[in-house]
Amino acid sequence: MVIKMAIRQGRYTLMLPSRPVITGSAAVVGKKEGEGPLANEFDSVSQDDSLGEASFEKAESAMQRDAVIRALNKAGETPDNVDMVFAGDLLNQCIGTSFGLRGMDMPFAGLYGACSTMSLSLALSAIMTDTAAANVCIASTSSHFCSAERQYRLPLEYGGQRTPTSQWTATAAGAAVVSRTGSGPRATAVIFGKIQDLGIKDANNMGAAMAPAAASTIKDFLSDTAGAPSDYDMILTGDLGTVGSSLLCELLMKEANLDISGVHSDCGIMMYDLKNQDVHAGGSGCGCSAAILCSYIMRRIREKSLKKVLFVGTGALLSPTSSLQGESIPAIAHGVVLEAD
Amino acid sequence: MVIKMAIRQGRYTLMLPSRPVITGSAAVVGKKEGEGPLANEFDSVSQDDSLGEASFEKAESAMQRDAVIRALNKAGETPDNVDMVFAGDLLNQCIGTSFGLRGMDMPFAGLYGACSTMSLSLALSAIMTDTAAANVCIASTSSHFCSAERQYRLPLEYGGQRTPTSQWTATAAGAAVVSRTGSGPRATAVIFGKIQDLGIKDANNMGAAMAPAAASTIKDFLSDTAGAPSDYDMILTGDLGTVGSSLLCELLMKEANLDISGVHSDCGIMMYDLKNQDVHAGGSGCGCSAAILCSYIMRRIREKSLKKVLFVGTGALLSPTSSLQGESIPAIAHGVVLEAD
Repeated sequence: MVIKMAIRQGRYTLMLPSRPVITGSAAVVGKKEGEGPLANEFDSVSQDDSLGEASFEKAESAMQRDAVIRALNKAGETPDNVDMVFAGDLLNQCIGTSFGLRGMDMPFAGLYGACSTMSLSLALSAIMTDTAAANVCIASTSSHFCSAERQYRLPLEYGGQRTPTSQWTATAAGAAVVSRTGSGPRATAVIFGKIQDLGIKDANNMGAAMAPAAASTIKDFLSDTAGAPSDYDMILTGDLGTVGSSLLCELLMKEANLDISGVHSDCGIMMYDLKNQDVHAGGSGCGCSAAILCSYIMRRIREKSLKKVLFVGTGALLSPTSSLQGESIPAIAHGVVLEAD
Repeated sequence: MVIKMAIRQGRYTLMLPSRPVITGSAAVVGKKEGEGPLANEFDSVSQDDSLGEASFEKAESAMQRDAVIRALNKAGETPDNVDMVFAGDLLNQCIGTSFGLRGMDMPFAGLYGACSTMSLSLALSAIMTDTAAANVCIASTSSHFCSAERQYRLPLEYGGQRTPTSQWTATAAGAAVVSRTGSGPRATAVIFGKIQDLGIKDANNMGAAMAPAAASTIKDFLSDTAGAPSDYDMILTGDLGTVGSSLLCELLMKEANLDISGVHSDCGIMMYDLKNQDVHAGGSGCGCSAAILCSYIMRRIREKSLKKVLFVGTGALLSPTSSLQGESIPAIAHGVVLEAD
């Protein structure tokens, strides 16, 4: 039997000749995200950020679970049929995920990629299905403004002021079902990033810390595939916000003479109305890019108004402890190419 | 071209027909671990748990980096040649790993599997190489008693007493290089576990919380492969300690009439002299099973005194926050079969 399988192209890129299919995806968001420009795209908008749970952490778990169940339903799959879940979140020890998926009885690989988690989980799901190591995988992640604020920064009750470069952690979860068969957007290539650290130490300016990681991955990918930005309807980063997005375009132009400005979008910029929703440099959090990818973007690829998207999730691999110890912020970015069926 | 690749056997198990090779592995441990029964097995024993670094977290990063570099050297590889690193640790946001591997410029997928991380990273590395999605992968992880204590429990200076069921987080790191070619122990099958939670809430009794996860994975694996415990020279769990190990044997006997007592060993029991080193129920921490697997076990498989080992890493997916919120402890266990060349 001749089996098509992941083929390395260039140094870092894996082409997926079987073109694994995203047979279902779903996005669940909180109140503020439901008041933003993409309000009508999401599968569910909660009017109460606690989701009726006793803590924000439990609410985040409930949200991720909800996204997974909705994605499964859309794909016409049940947990019984899932060979592998790749998932993670921002909370210490990734409890948003482990408690959210507990009881669903699916083989589970926990990930930590900060806000790059959607791209990491999607890339691993796509490789597993492309190589036939799995027939059906789930990629999922979540974040919650209230659980993230008190863990990474200050208790909400403190009412601390935010700096202009800071990003707003989205209350959101996204999940995608990736299958060997079926119809839907197809994952046709993936690239795993390398940790980049240019010495940024300001934990309130993560866009600047992550931009070099996005630049590195995009540069490697276009070099590996001998491609140009114009080969893509969209190069979608998640989530650099306004500060990081400008830096990314600048870096790519300066270092590799690549002009992505015509096709670049960023989930951190898309999630909120930046003029009126007081989120400063934009959105962030694992759930921000996950929710946008698993709703707005997947829908447009299904409808073929977007035919080829390079999704580059970016994560800042810091912790409050590393920042207190004077460390700079390592960052990473993973890429997945999604194409219309 | 006919390519051998991961083949699903039964519901959960993946057989790896190309038999990926562990071409090099290394273990680096702290002072207490270097005073235990396996002292002579490790590649390096640090006499100073700070490793000359300014914090315990930085020491843990240095230890993981050291293990990775030593494993690469033994495999005769350089970071340039590594297609993928799968790694994680216990620290919030896995900073032991991201800061440890920063600057090595290798494609990186961050994992969170608590003390199951070595089995998770090894399983993913083995699948990636078996399917030819990668030629060379690294699986690595670390833990540090001092960074774990202050994060999960109490500052060391407090001098809190430990309960009899508690386990001692090992100061240790292990890394393995997994390749498509070369000689050494071979990974011939993997199984990813499902989250199990039988309602244990005592964070000082993680052996009890993790035993059902180990039981579930071992049961599924032996059922998928129509195998018996006696097919293995060793079924090695990491790390259930004394309490969890007894429970595991009991659970398997009761639920599946499987008697593993003749071939079962546990890294948490092997790491320390339980009578004289005051570690109560045994060792734990990602680094405990990683260091033992990447030294003692790999050496014996290379020397063929062990011919077939089922390694089952177990992780407790709790956080201090989830415990404070009254939650029970979800756990997971992943398995990898290692065979002599």
